[in-house]
Amino acid sequence: MHILVTGAAGMLGRKLTASLVANGGMDGKPPDALTLIDVVEPAAPAGYAGRTVARATDIAAPGVAQAMIATRPDVIFHLAAIVSGEAEADFDKGYHINLDATRALFDAIRAERGASGYRPRVVFASSIAVFGAPFPEKIGDDFFTTPLTSYGTQKAIGELLLADYSRRGFLDGIALRLPTICVRPGAPNKAASGFFSNIIREPLVGEEAVLPVGDDVRHWHASPRSAVGFLRHAATMDLAALGARRALTLPGCSATVGDQIAALERVAGRKATALIRREPDPAIERIVAGWPRDFDPARALALGFRSETSFEEIIRVHIEDELGGRM
Amino acid sequence: MHILVTGAAGMLGRKLTASLVANGGMDGKPPDALTLIDVVEPAAPAGYAGRTVARATDIAAPGVAQAMIATRPDVIFHLAAIVSGEAEADFDKGYHINLDATRALFDAIRAERGASGYRPRVVFASSIAVFGAPFPEKIGDDFFTTPLTSYGTQKAIGELLLADYSRRGFLDGIALRLPTICVRPGAPNKAASGFFSNIIREPLVGEEAVLPVGDDVRHWHASPRSAVGFLRHAATMDLAALGARRALTLPGCSATVGDQIAALERVAGRKATALIRREPDPAIERIVAGWPRDFDPARALALGFRSETSFEEIIRVHIEDELGGRM
Repeated sequence: MHILVTGAAGMLGRKLTASLVANGGMDGKPPDALTLIDVVEPAAPAGYAGRTVARATDIAAPGVAQAMIATRPDVIFHLAAIVSGEAEADFDKGYHINLDATRALFDAIRAERGASGYRPRVVFASSIAVFGAPFPEKIGDDFFTTPLTSYGTQKAIGELLLADYSRRGFLDGIALRLPTICVRPGAPNKAASGFFSNIIREPLVGEEAVLPVGDDVRHWHASPRSAVGFLRHAATMDLAALGARRALTLPGCSATVGDQIAALERVAGRKATALIRREPDPAIERIVAGWPRDFDPARALALGFRSETSFEEIIRVHIEDELGGRM
Repeated sequence: MHILVTGAAGMLGRKLTASLVANGGMDGKPPDALTLIDVVEPAAPAGYAGRTVARATDIAAPGVAQAMIATRPDVIFHLAAIVSGEAEADFDKGYHINLDATRALFDAIRAERGASGYRPRVVFASSIAVFGAPFPEKIGDDFFTTPLTSYGTQKAIGELLLADYSRRGFLDGIALRLPTICVRPGAPNKAASGFFSNIIREPLVGEEAVLPVGDDVRHWHASPRSAVGFLRHAATMDLAALGARRALTLPGCSATVGDQIAALERVAGRKATALIRREPDPAIERIVAGWPRDFDPARALALGFRSETSFEEIIRVHIEDELGGRM
């Protein structure tokens, strides 16, 4: 099996690649070949004996999609994206990568199908950013997509294209609306959502973290481990059950910031929560007010997708996966 | 006021143009200028004293959108589209016109805005084809768009682009999900939906019409007169009430084929309904099974959009507007 990962140098791309190699690929044996693409050159996975092509490239540049598809990967994880903040700041760049490159990829697959009958599994990383407030208390599977960012718009368009290209038989696609991934490893970043991870990750290693919103802010989370599990499940499951509706809202854990802090205290004590410094930021509060709080992801649950069910579990997963089980 | 109509040679474009001229434009006086664009040259409206530019052009060709926008129309009715059947038969042509040309138009507006602060009202003709079965009994305003045709996909993408470009301040857009327009004037056509009009229009002039589906098929209709009314209202109303949700499902009349025939009998007697020949067509029955049956268009009603409320009214409108009030 040949697996292509776009956005392979990102947090999720690296974890997915490591998992594919460590856990015997997708069908019990390691993939024969990995193609790893990103705007910076992805690291080849350690201890992998298969053929690896790791390349830094602009996936929206002419000919790049065709070159990727000419090698006929069996499974394509399309994770590459300009993130929310940057797509909002640079309108053209966001549309260029998140829409044009996605469509170029799908069109390259369509052309190869016409030439050879090729029809790969395509797992497209979408986002709960396809939704925009106001919301019902829990967002159901048939709620409409009214994004409030260009990033969310581009992801919603990608979902529509994926569904149409799948319906026409050009590819076998599934779009996963990933929850906010928490706890993100690495240094604090300036994403508006960064604090959800910062207030857990930093105190666990004795560092201070800033909390810019109130304790009553509710949001939808899943761990990086769950995200990798979603991608792997989507790559191998029978998609017939999806019918024409190829986009899934994934399970997650709905928690308030207060729930997060209480879970941290149960896991790591008051010495950890004492490191959270409350510094309200009206700009971030305003952005976060437009974000989803809770979902009823009945379809994804019925299709076998699983995530953590409490925020405490999310913290324990972080400690196991990122801190070697120690605090 | 300068008004641009794309798709101006189509049934709806011609009726809209005639209405703008006959009814004193949009603000009580005739428009100063009309630009009429279509793939065949639109007829200039009779008896109109303002400046008219009528041009046959491919709106997706390089430079065409910029040329249209360089004249800075105040209101743009973007009606041009490859229809459902053709967009399904010719994948590239459908995406080229319904997606690429729409985006090129919006990008030309954005460029002109950057240059001069231009920000026109854009009324985008969308369709209930953005929805795909299975449906609830009545489709509400927050139901998701899961199109089952490439045409519906392209319209749903156009809605998303319109909303994002509006949110960013590049234009002031509204997307109208038109019901199936019935009774369509003119000769019977081969669209899968053609029979909804054929079984009324042909018997009213003593001609036979073929009914390929059962009497229990329910669908969502509005007259051409209502459609023109929707477009005119959308061009002048205050869009602030829409917020970021720029696409509206419009009011219509939900009627079964049996309701249609009963209404025809009330209006024109049994000699008319006797001209309907039942000739079931499994292919058409299958297509129609995926179409919406009924809506609860609460937002559009609250915003002042109005349609016929019975199918009998739709027939009487046809007789007034197309048959000079006589049968």
